[in-house]
Amino acid sequence: MTKRALISVSNKDGILDFAKELVALGYEILSTGGTKKLLADNDVPVTAVDEVTKFPEILDGRVKTLNPLIHGGLLGKFDDPSHKAQMDEHGIEPIEIVCVNLYPFVETISKPDVTFEDAIENIDIGGPTMLRSAAKNHQYVSVIVDSNDYAQVIEELKAEGATTLETRKRLAAKVFRHTAAYDSYISNYLTEDEFPENLTMTYELKQTLRYGENPHQKAAFYQKRLASDFSVAYATQLHGKELSYNNIQDANAALQIVKEFDIPAAVAVKHMNPCGVGTGASIYEAYNKAYEADSTSIFGGIVALNREVDVQTAEQLSQIFLEIIIAPSFTEEALEILTKKKNIRLLTINFAQEKQDQYKVVSVEGGLLVQEDDKFGFDEADIKVVTDREPTEEEWEALKLGWAVVKHVKSNAIVVNDAQMTLGIGAGQMNRVGAAKIALEQAGSKAKGAALASDAFFPMPDTVETAIAAGITAIIHPGGSIRDQDSIEVANAAGITMVTTGVRHFKH
Amino acid sequence: MTKRALISVSNKDGILDFAKELVALGYEILSTGGTKKLLADNDVPVTAVDEVTKFPEILDGRVKTLNPLIHGGLLGKFDDPSHKAQMDEHGIEPIEIVCVNLYPFVETISKPDVTFEDAIENIDIGGPTMLRSAAKNHQYVSVIVDSNDYAQVIEELKAEGATTLETRKRLAAKVFRHTAAYDSYISNYLTEDEFPENLTMTYELKQTLRYGENPHQKAAFYQKRLASDFSVAYATQLHGKELSYNNIQDANAALQIVKEFDIPAAVAVKHMNPCGVGTGASIYEAYNKAYEADSTSIFGGIVALNREVDVQTAEQLSQIFLEIIIAPSFTEEALEILTKKKNIRLLTINFAQEKQDQYKVVSVEGGLLVQEDDKFGFDEADIKVVTDREPTEEEWEALKLGWAVVKHVKSNAIVVNDAQMTLGIGAGQMNRVGAAKIALEQAGSKAKGAALASDAFFPMPDTVETAIAAGITAIIHPGGSIRDQDSIEVANAAGITMVTTGVRHFKH
Repeated sequence: MTKRALISVSNKDGILDFAKELVALGYEILSTGGTKKLLADNDVPVTAVDEVTKFPEILDGRVKTLNPLIHGGLLGKFDDPSHKAQMDEHGIEPIEIVCVNLYPFVETISKPDVTFEDAIENIDIGGPTMLRSAAKNHQYVSVIVDSNDYAQVIEELKAEGATTLETRKRLAAKVFRHTAAYDSYISNYLTEDEFPENLTMTYELKQTLRYGENPHQKAAFYQKRLASDFSVAYATQLHGKELSYNNIQDANAALQIVKEFDIPAAVAVKHMNPCGVGTGASIYEAYNKAYEADSTSIFGGIVALNREVDVQTAEQLSQIFLEIIIAPSFTEEALEILTKKKNIRLLTINFAQEKQDQYKVVSVEGGLLVQEDDKFGFDEADIKVVTDREPTEEEWEALKLGWAVVKHVKSNAIVVNDAQMTLGIGAGQMNRVGAAKIALEQAGSKAKGAALASDAFFPMPDTVETAIAAGITAIIHPGGSIRDQDSIEVANAAGITMVTTGVRHFKH
Repeated sequence: MTKRALISVSNKDGILDFAKELVALGYEILSTGGTKKLLADNDVPVTAVDEVTKFPEILDGRVKTLNPLIHGGLLGKFDDPSHKAQMDEHGIEPIEIVCVNLYPFVETISKPDVTFEDAIENIDIGGPTMLRSAAKNHQYVSVIVDSNDYAQVIEELKAEGATTLETRKRLAAKVFRHTAAYDSYISNYLTEDEFPENLTMTYELKQTLRYGENPHQKAAFYQKRLASDFSVAYATQLHGKELSYNNIQDANAALQIVKEFDIPAAVAVKHMNPCGVGTGASIYEAYNKAYEADSTSIFGGIVALNREVDVQTAEQLSQIFLEIIIAPSFTEEALEILTKKKNIRLLTINFAQEKQDQYKVVSVEGGLLVQEDDKFGFDEADIKVVTDREPTEEEWEALKLGWAVVKHVKSNAIVVNDAQMTLGIGAGQMNRVGAAKIALEQAGSKAKGAALASDAFFPMPDTVETAIAAGITAIIHPGGSIRDQDSIEVANAAGITMVTTGVRHFKH
């Protein structure tokens, strides 16, 4: 009996060669639509599916293969006597090989001018059904959804006359990964509920990583389709070893911070916290300030810059060991200087694009937390000066800078800074005054006349008292404690200025 | 023309009433298998699907509805003249309502003794295909996969003679969420690759949250199926308001830490870091030590305990404001005391179960990081005493405790502790010696004779010098710096003991 292969593909890469190999191996090819035409036009003998089904393609191609004479051939256990008898009775012949890929739903909805009708028409019904039938019956059927698998299937057929069960199982698993991803995109496209009863998210492997946060943890980096280029996942690496797990988290953190600034800015990150943030008239000046902000912690850090790296800045950057430099671009001379360092990684990223992710997720044991990204910026309308004294123009600049940075520091977070740069950063503390002490101690004498930003309100006036004692003259915080007035009185008594934002920026 | 509804359900809850309502509204019911039998046995008039298809059910039910006379009825645009003509030509009648749910794949693979064959047999092919056809064609067809939607569909049919397009679209989106989740479970079951090219994860909504980390961020909590009960998602809440986003993260962190201990232990957490960890002969003693460890930061914190909370411990717990207490159980009297506090949340959790999640995920902009959980414990085989002096028995106890805790503190992390409790915790610092200073300052005079644990190696001997100056006599860290010897010499010169673990515990 002739063996049969059913081929129906939307992506036609390599399909002609694959079909020819199958024909050479004695397979009868069943096909339909554009694939059938392509094969026939290239002199590959092909049988139309409707010759098998004795039923024409109807409803603009919506119903072609949804037929027991096809699915019986995909789902029958070829060596089961009762199945065999039923198949014979109904003239159903086994289909040993299925090669199908699907209408390009994601590509369709990616088009800026896509209509709802276009999207719906690109939901494939027959394709996933054939894939799923064949994958369920992988004990008997080889099912290929990825053109990268053509070669191995042909090789096994040539060598042994059949694929191995191991290969068929691997191919079946790939099919269900494919259909799961496919329906995940469709469901996300159609779903209007913010937090539906089933959340199915799909990602594509970008790279397996050498390890995770620690060498004994396996890890991988996946990318989202339909995402913004403003992402480490879509950055271009110009130089250096591949990114590690911790590199990716740190680079992501650095990018989110530097994206807060329109003026030239540079951010150094260690362990997902900024250790130095600098701004200036040029990127050179900005980087120097980020470096000065904490010239100890920056060692081995990640630096993100929001302007092209020029030769002067590159020379400065090359003075110390950095893991990663990430910027919109590098001049040729800057690249020449930096690529001399073997251990540095250089990335470019499209700063022109906005961030896009609506939601971020994080695992807890047995579950997943999903939340909107904290996209809230500095909104003048919500800002209130709560002290007698108004900030000076320079203090306003400093308060804005501190507020932009403290949002990205792990809670409890306190930032001490002037109008151009951070002077001290107190991160990740279990109590607020502890965070303030760390930031103020780091700032030292530079705290005199500087600003202080707090990611959450002051439950007691102790942080304000500590700040004043260190010489802070301007404070920004969300406000909203029942004891706000205590802090205000302490500030007024010292003649400093304090503003509230009405917005909290916890980050963990 | 009679309207038609196709009903084929695995979960039969409410189906009889739904079918009767449809019959009363003039629908002809098409059905198959067990559903058809149930309806017929209950005097609901029903037409067998094979009367429509003119083709018998074959291959042990693998092929029943995969037929153009069914799918033409689901996929035809009823008001499109060309579709209408084709349908008439082939004797295809529209099916306006589809009510299908699927073979219980997840329930099947949850069974401890499930065979691979059982699992494969429970991959539904016909069901998802009908659901997907009807959902694609939701312009015309109402498709119901969830028995909770029966009532609304009947209501709309009674009121207007038809469902609204809005309802049909909502139902269609739910179908694709369902099929995406279904194929995600199948793909995860079949996939052997650690990090496949497509990763599709599915979760079920546990609760929408009032907000996320901050009030301006929307958020929800999803739970995994096939997960361990040792999870906040599967905890039982005995008292108090619903958990917030930050509560869930903190409670999860507290649980992971307390799970490190077999002896009675209590952990207080703030901002995902432990602020106090105590152990003892009783849970009362353990809690008191956790409290003493940092009696300031524990205020408003989360406390996890690994033994039943008794009356004596409950009295202590009720002395301060805590957000959450989580324990295997509470005695009745303990509950009486604690439930007097309106603002506290009390949770019980199954400590007998092991943690189970193999992988944890976290978003970065445009992507997802996936890594193995850090399950590494204290492995005697990897421990090396690197100094001249060996730890005393009590020092060993302290080193083990510090190592168990530092793994759960955000990096850079330093823990100072004795054999029973933490004395100082330096968390989330951008440089290591900074973390040590925080921990040692908090420990104060108690650092004399205490142990110090570091989550990563010492790149320079400065941390060891700082520790010795504060009176630390025993140190545990991963080792592995090219300058390890410098630290060892400093330790030997001071006569303290130091051990290395060979394992790093970064956590961010």
